[in-house]
Amino acid sequence: MSLLTVGSVAFDALETPFGKTDKIIGGAATYITLAASYFTKENNLVAVVGGDFPNEMISLLQDHGVNTEGLEIVQDGKTFFWSGKYHEDMNTRDTLETQLNVMEHFDPIIPDTYQGTEFLMLGNTVPATQKLVIERMAKRPKLIMLDTMNLWMNIALDDLKAVLKLVDLITINDEEARQLSGEYSLRKAAKKIMAMGPKTLIIKKGEHGALLFQDDRIFFAPALPLEEVFDPTGAGDTFAGGFIGYLASTNDISFENMKRAIIYGSAMASFCVEKFGTERVVNLTQQEIDARVQDFVNLSSFEIQ
Amino acid sequence: MSLLTVGSVAFDALETPFGKTDKIIGGAATYITLAASYFTKENNLVAVVGGDFPNEMISLLQDHGVNTEGLEIVQDGKTFFWSGKYHEDMNTRDTLETQLNVMEHFDPIIPDTYQGTEFLMLGNTVPATQKLVIERMAKRPKLIMLDTMNLWMNIALDDLKAVLKLVDLITINDEEARQLSGEYSLRKAAKKIMAMGPKTLIIKKGEHGALLFQDDRIFFAPALPLEEVFDPTGAGDTFAGGFIGYLASTNDISFENMKRAIIYGSAMASFCVEKFGTERVVNLTQQEIDARVQDFVNLSSFEIQ
Repeated sequence: MSLLTVGSVAFDALETPFGKTDKIIGGAATYITLAASYFTKENNLVAVVGGDFPNEMISLLQDHGVNTEGLEIVQDGKTFFWSGKYHEDMNTRDTLETQLNVMEHFDPIIPDTYQGTEFLMLGNTVPATQKLVIERMAKRPKLIMLDTMNLWMNIALDDLKAVLKLVDLITINDEEARQLSGEYSLRKAAKKIMAMGPKTLIIKKGEHGALLFQDDRIFFAPALPLEEVFDPTGAGDTFAGGFIGYLASTNDISFENMKRAIIYGSAMASFCVEKFGTERVVNLTQQEIDARVQDFVNLSSFEIQ
Repeated sequence: MSLLTVGSVAFDALETPFGKTDKIIGGAATYITLAASYFTKENNLVAVVGGDFPNEMISLLQDHGVNTEGLEIVQDGKTFFWSGKYHEDMNTRDTLETQLNVMEHFDPIIPDTYQGTEFLMLGNTVPATQKLVIERMAKRPKLIMLDTMNLWMNIALDDLKAVLKLVDLITINDEEARQLSGEYSLRKAAKKIMAMGPKTLIIKKGEHGALLFQDDRIFFAPALPLEEVFDPTGAGDTFAGGFIGYLASTNDISFENMKRAIIYGSAMASFCVEKFGTERVVNLTQQEIDARVQDFVNLSSFEIQ
């Protein structure tokens, strides 16, 4: 089945304890579509970049089967830019600079050829823009998944709550779940957030794995303990891309299949952090993905006699 | 098979966001033997208490099948006392008071009837005392498991390293693993710690589960997401008691069985935190334990197609 991803395509400049980069390609929708490309063949993108965005980067997305018809290029504008510096433990980072540039007036136009897409992934961006995308879909997708962050809870909570009513699944991290719900216990937090609209919730805990909640069911997917985390940028988006790419490719939104999808998403995220930016995610083989998924099976399987 | 536990039997006074207690029964060996009592019938204890320790508490241990022949009572001494206060997030706590009392001169005498015990659990205490216990065993146990803490890494590191050479399995938390190894990555930390002696290592991550390392193998056991953590005191010891009690009852120290044992240990720990002190762990049924273990199966099982 087809997937539509709406979100940022950007330049990032990163600094980690292992080194720093100049401007490299980044953005939520970039990581999501690249990760999803290993699963689904119909991979539609809606985003905006400036005239400074290199053609070879667009070609790179196209080489991964990403449909860029919905990628608007504002020739006299500049591409969204973010730079950040990670602390020694890699779990926390400081934003050094954010230039919204063309994202400030992002008007997500859905090409006619994208209408009828069954799976919609709303990458982290302004909640009102996410809502606009849903309203512009002629037919409601089979599954709408939304990523968001603490920033929107701080400055656009009403808009966020409005769009939450319209989606099936949201993904946030543990601190954001606590902020959005006002509950410290993630189990209590999940109940309150699901009562806001989404039937299904994924709480990402970074190196501590991820929790999937739906009705009274909980599934926990571990993160793979890695020798080294090189650069965590994009790990959450890569996770989301692997997750929804797998769902779209199987066209099965049952809880059992979402459990598998979380493992695939976690496997994709575990690759992402091994190198800077998208470097690892653009160069994966099916064999590598299958072997990594098997690592997750070995890591977490046991049998009670 | 039989289990020998050596460690503290104590009084605790606790303060959590949910309330506070007067002196209640605590101590590593108390939690360990109580948890193990649900699995193994031969449950030997070596510890020391003062004349102030109530007989009904000794009866309580005996009612759970704990052999208290090795429980020394120093009539003119006072029982080890610890009081602590938990922060709002329950993950951190301050020690308010520690009175070593009779623990200061604890000389662990192994009764003749305990000789030949196959499984030895060294609860967290002075590393030199832990080493003395091993030396006093006429025949080396089949499995020696050791718990320790950051305090001993700070003030008795050489003694700790000496006893680590003699044991099969150690259990510490993530911060302690990082301190002991000097590595931030838990995977790297595990390699260094296993090179110090123990063939097997369990890294406890509290609400984030536990990792089991042996050679190149890793197993991850999740913690059960709970609605409420009432009092975390003793959770690590209860985990250890459930783990080694299960191993002793099955007399199987394979990696596959250790995976099961970690799930049983995690299930026991999940009960422990539901009430103050030992309150929940003294009143469990086999049905409750089986149902809780099934919760862990449901939480973490998935099938890759």
